Amino acid sequence: MSAWILPDHIADVLPSEARHIEELRRGFLDTARSYGYELVIPPLLEHLDSLLTGSGEALDLQTFKLVDQLSGRSMGLRADTTQQVARIDAHLLNRQGVTRLCYCGPVLHAKPDKPHATREPLQFGSEIYGHSGVEADVEILTLAKECLEAAGVTDFTTDVADVRIVRRLLDGVEVAPAVLRDLHAALARKDSAEIGRLTRAFPESQREGLRALPHLYGDIEVLKDAQQALGLVPGISGLLGELKRFASLLDASRLSFDLADLRGYSYYSGIRFAMFVPGGSDALVRGGRYDEVGSVFGRNRPAVGFSLDVKQIACVTPDRDLRAAIRAPWLESAAANDAIAALRRRGETVVCVLPGCESKVDEFNCDRELVEVSGQWIVRAIKPTEI
Amino acid sequence: MSAWILPDHIADVLPSEARHIEELRRGFLDTARSYGYELVIPPLLEHLDSLLTGSGEALDLQTFKLVDQLSGRSMGLRADTTQQVARIDAHLLNRQGVTRLCYCGPVLHAKPDKPHATREPLQFGSEIYGHSGVEADVEILTLAKECLEAAGVTDFTTDVADVRIVRRLLDGVEVAPAVLRDLHAALARKDSAEIGRLTRAFPESQREGLRALPHLYGDIEVLKDAQQALGLVPGISGLLGELKRFASLLDASRLSFDLADLRGYSYYSGIRFAMFVPGGSDALVRGGRYDEVGSVFGRNRPAVGFSLDVKQIACVTPDRDLRAAIRAPWLESAAANDAIAALRRRGETVVCVLPGCESKVDEFNCDRELVEVSGQWIVRAIKPTEI
Repeated sequence: MSAWILPDHIADVLPSEARHIEELRRGFLDTARSYGYELVIPPLLEHLDSLLTGSGEALDLQTFKLVDQLSGRSMGLRADTTQQVARIDAHLLNRQGVTRLCYCGPVLHAKPDKPHATREPLQFGSEIYGHSGVEADVEILTLAKECLEAAGVTDFTTDVADVRIVRRLLDGVEVAPAVLRDLHAALARKDSAEIGRLTRAFPESQREGLRALPHLYGDIEVLKDAQQALGLVPGISGLLGELKRFASLLDASRLSFDLADLRGYSYYSGIRFAMFVPGGSDALVRGGRYDEVGSVFGRNRPAVGFSLDVKQIACVTPDRDLRAAIRAPWLESAAANDAIAALRRRGETVVCVLPGCESKVDEFNCDRELVEVSGQWIVRAIKPTEI
Repeated sequence: MSAWILPDHIADVLPSEARHIEELRRGFLDTARSYGYELVIPPLLEHLDSLLTGSGEALDLQTFKLVDQLSGRSMGLRADTTQQVARIDAHLLNRQGVTRLCYCGPVLHAKPDKPHATREPLQFGSEIYGHSGVEADVEILTLAKECLEAAGVTDFTTDVADVRIVRRLLDGVEVAPAVLRDLHAALARKDSAEIGRLTRAFPESQREGLRALPHLYGDIEVLKDAQQALGLVPGISGLLGELKRFASLLDASRLSFDLADLRGYSYYSGIRFAMFVPGGSDALVRGGRYDEVGSVFGRNRPAVGFSLDVKQIACVTPDRDLRAAIRAPWLESAAANDAIAALRRRGETVVCVLPGCESKVDEFNCDRELVEVSGQWIVRAIKPTEI
């Protein structure tokens, strides 16, 4: 990708990278289709109020704004597709049963997420609406895993968290917004001392539970430790049981838990997950349950889903070898043209050398050529010296 | 497509339409690849000055503008991809020989092209850079034709024009801009009387040529008539010879000529074409030669190409039948899950019925189901009464 003349964090995608992205895109859509996820294509821009309804301030800051000349109203370029797909489920499809949807298209960010992030990710995602059971969470995580595997990413870990644990631990406690913010920050830092200080006035079992949270990360054993440390707080046992069932339906050895992890606290309403390659600090996939997403559209359906950036996946996966092409002469001969058409129908790339360009360097990687031998058009290897 | 809450001329694309568009998109990209066109993905937004450099006022009016928070500079959402691909050829690839490029992505229009047009077409196109011969024009038109045929459009006509004819007829004549504008309008109306009035002061052969133009439309015979009517004007014979050679390399019976047609006069520099289905007033495909396109990027390479809107093609082609899916139970059984995975690997869509949803209406079109019979998981047809 190059940035010649382009705005910062905006780039052209050149041929080999573009082909790689296109292949990944098809692989993701085909994997989702094999699970019964129906493709939708929401628009790149919408009225700002419908695009940002119910979303947080972060998305607002990330959204490019412009004015619609036709109506004079403010519009935004989508920075995330999830809200749009929830709108489609709620209003356009409006089905009673389970709806599975997927999408793949660009999103635009007014500010880059990270110092080297693109402002034009190609977002692919899948969502299940209308099912509140953990089986839907399991299906979404399984589909995300298969998508990564289809892309050639086989070595990755899955971090699991559940924002409801902290919510339960705060249930019935009156906390000032500033204290809550500090508490979230302390949990993110795993700062037990600060958590102890902030929760001095809390009921004992909830205070002890919050102080234990920073230690509750690691493999599946964490759920047992959590049962000991938090089990007395009303509702927590049920949540841990749900997490255990979730893990039992997946390959638990690939899961790691962090019960203090609150990323997406305002957005997710249940189990959430993120997938990482070893040594990578950016999640390749983020997903989870966000049952409230459709409520702003008047239809509060259970919802669970994931998304990823196809461009980011392209950076961590090797290009597949492109099959090399066949070079053919540009001839006004029906026999030659028939041979070329037949090769193309078989999936070959046939590059016709335009008149006057015979001696020019081959821009396309051709390893074979179409030649006439004894009145027959045949394909033969190009000798290395000729390439 | 529905417009609930969305801005005018902006729509969601729902599942069956979206799948149709995705299939057309793949067919176009695969057809272009089989000819050796390399995929590029230019960004959705760029600095306004680079996006609009060298383009006309029409594109400026059609372009959404916004401000880049990072730089304070004006940016535009691309309303057309052609300029971007020319920039990639000129600066990023910068090859000496022939370069064939293709692209497929959304473009955005601040104002709709027509009363019922979308403001978010999905533009697919292909371009050849670096070859000025008519053979490149022929390859581009042939590829456009194959793309339409791959989409299932077989009954279409191709209108051919060449803006150089009028340019030659005006060569060396001093014409005030206002007169030139009136002359173009009169040619568009095929108003010979007005053309006669406007060209009274012109040299006789050129005046007669311009007056003859409104009659020079129809099949390949038009080129002979044109030779008679315009042949004495310097340079015209050569142009007509090139058009004849162009037609001889294609199926001339499908071509219709209109030598007074000046659409794209400021943009095209040679032969241009448009493809129509019978009774359709909007061209499905527009293309032609525009050798000047790269000059604003410092590299004046010959260029010829075409583009189309995948959404428009989807409206005029029948959906392909989707293969129906297989319904499967949601089970924690390794044998069932293995059977499901094997079916998905074979390209089948297998929809698992989530627990509690067994009695709900099937949202997906399932004509078969996975059932256990004598300890074996088999696929069998769903009886019509069950669907």
